[in-house]
Amino acid sequence: MKFNVLKTDVASSARTGILKTDHGEIQTPIFMPIGTHGAVKTVTPSELKSVKTQIILGNTYHLYLRPGTELINAAGGLHKFMNWDLPILTDSGGFQVFSLARLNKISDEGVEFQSHLDGSRHFLTPEKSMEIQQNLGVDIIMAFDECPPSDADLTTIKSAVNRTKIWIDRCKRYLKENSPVYNWEQTIFPIVQGGVFSELRKQSAEDMIPYAQCGMAIGGLAVGEEKPAMFEMIELMDELLPKDQPRYLMGVGTPSDLIQAVSRGMDMFDCVIPTRNARNGQFFTSFGKVNIRNEKYKFDFRPIDENCTCETCSNFTRAYIRHLFNINEVLGLRLATIHNLHYYLNLMELMRSHIQKGDFQDWSQNYLKQNSFEF
Amino acid sequence: MKFNVLKTDVASSARTGILKTDHGEIQTPIFMPIGTHGAVKTVTPSELKSVKTQIILGNTYHLYLRPGTELINAAGGLHKFMNWDLPILTDSGGFQVFSLARLNKISDEGVEFQSHLDGSRHFLTPEKSMEIQQNLGVDIIMAFDECPPSDADLTTIKSAVNRTKIWIDRCKRYLKENSPVYNWEQTIFPIVQGGVFSELRKQSAEDMIPYAQCGMAIGGLAVGEEKPAMFEMIELMDELLPKDQPRYLMGVGTPSDLIQAVSRGMDMFDCVIPTRNARNGQFFTSFGKVNIRNEKYKFDFRPIDENCTCETCSNFTRAYIRHLFNINEVLGLRLATIHNLHYYLNLMELMRSHIQKGDFQDWSQNYLKQNSFEF
Repeated sequence: MKFNVLKTDVASSARTGILKTDHGEIQTPIFMPIGTHGAVKTVTPSELKSVKTQIILGNTYHLYLRPGTELINAAGGLHKFMNWDLPILTDSGGFQVFSLARLNKISDEGVEFQSHLDGSRHFLTPEKSMEIQQNLGVDIIMAFDECPPSDADLTTIKSAVNRTKIWIDRCKRYLKENSPVYNWEQTIFPIVQGGVFSELRKQSAEDMIPYAQCGMAIGGLAVGEEKPAMFEMIELMDELLPKDQPRYLMGVGTPSDLIQAVSRGMDMFDCVIPTRNARNGQFFTSFGKVNIRNEKYKFDFRPIDENCTCETCSNFTRAYIRHLFNINEVLGLRLATIHNLHYYLNLMELMRSHIQKGDFQDWSQNYLKQNSFEF
Repeated sequence: MKFNVLKTDVASSARTGILKTDHGEIQTPIFMPIGTHGAVKTVTPSELKSVKTQIILGNTYHLYLRPGTELINAAGGLHKFMNWDLPILTDSGGFQVFSLARLNKISDEGVEFQSHLDGSRHFLTPEKSMEIQQNLGVDIIMAFDECPPSDADLTTIKSAVNRTKIWIDRCKRYLKENSPVYNWEQTIFPIVQGGVFSELRKQSAEDMIPYAQCGMAIGGLAVGEEKPAMFEMIELMDELLPKDQPRYLMGVGTPSDLIQAVSRGMDMFDCVIPTRNARNGQFFTSFGKVNIRNEKYKFDFRPIDENCTCETCSNFTRAYIRHLFNINEVLGLRLATIHNLHYYLNLMELMRSHIQKGDFQDWSQNYLKQNSFEF
């Protein structure tokens, strides 16, 4: 795997780049739609491509529980299983274990938890997470880290930083000692933790940099802290992390978060917002949010966004989509998902083109001003 | 509207034809997917076209309750509202009033009922049904008829036959006295009732024929009676109904029902089976039914049907689709709907081509033998 910075903005840390994987090139900055369970909810791989998706994210925790790695391995890996031939990144399972499962015990050895589905007991370790992700056959493996809650105190976060360091070493050792399951390259992104404590972030960055080959991730942000604190940490990361590797800011965010993070040197993003909000009837548009269930759209025969070229806006009206949500028709969820993913991926493309053109600062200031509504 | 018989089979009553409407030509025999609420559940109009749908069916009762005719009228009719530019047929609302709503009172005047959604009271009459269907702007309007349950006795069915006669007269008078709401032609299909009583069927056919211009429907079958009784009635209808008009056999049926009905001179069909069964994980294939939830497909990486060319079979495996159903992922419902509609519409196309070629009898006997499994 190889990363090249193409152009860096003169007035900010924003940059464009290309990340080359055995499943194709990714133009950064990029947003990764979430395909939790081997599917980006409601849509097909060809629809994902039609909205210019370049890489998707899968969830190790969910895939491990259902359908399980044995099946995905028998299918020839996650790409073949779900018929997605472009790059895939998986998280390590850690975040979901901490947030979804019933956590029984956490130690330096690993995490014992009970499935949120059937209560069955499992033990997830750095080695196990690597083994699962090798069997999934994804292009980018995430390190197994400890991600404490947003309201954790300094001591807890410090302990998580230390444990994350112990664990990255075990992750790397496992990958060194166990060849890939498939005949394409997999790379691991170490994850910097440290909450909103600059010293701990600095420590964690120093811990992780030696383990990074072609990409690093920033975890433990966008988990409830204030926005200024989040951006302060991102700026610190921009200073400390190697510039010749892509930086993946995990779990971020709203459209304005993405722009502000790109201007602070971030390259890769994932978030449930576009797809989850879609399924709740909330659309992102060039003039702010549209909650399609609102009565005022009942007789509105315009597209969701007259400036949008997506399949949904090219074919259907607000009144019709509102009706689909009113009758709980699955087609409405699809049309909303297509639109919101198009919005997000188009936004990333706009950012790339303005960084290339050299007017990213003007463009982004203008965008943030015109879209000052809170998403 | 105009119907031409193209070719009649030498050994049976099967025939091919073309029904010309202002929204395009329909090649018969044809199956109409059900778009109850202004959408064929889970799929887009362009997907419907990709599986060769030529005409869809909408439900007057559902559309009248949600979103209501005022909205659909404001949209410019149902075609525009749902972005479907090929022909549409709507039922009269009667069947749903009898089967879904809480029925309060039925008289020669009409039917008083309470909505199954909110208990609100409504009064549906032949005139009201015509008014709604005119406002929906569909190409084919169904007469408002009384459709008694399958276990009704002779007296009840006789009363329904008589009432249906009174009502067709009022339907036609309403349409004569009220110009179409839009600038395209609408035609009404009278409906023959009479249960499984030959004399009543004969009576009803005689009642209805004078009101038919370009199409007649056969109602009150496939509502629980035995198959031999159903086919006996269909044969009687084949004898009695004008051969120069399309015959629409309402609510039928399984693939083998369709073949046997086509061989008895039927031209148009609708049924929930392909779409509803799809959403339950049941697929129609060239080798019988596939219940995809079955454990035996867990590691099965073949397509649902290796002989099928649909988008689902071209891209996804049994194991993957089974997984989608296991996690209740909407994408599974879509893939199943596409496959089953493709199966049904491909079956109709096969029938048309074999009638044209002159080997319909051989082909259909062979199909029924090979597919002797009960669908």
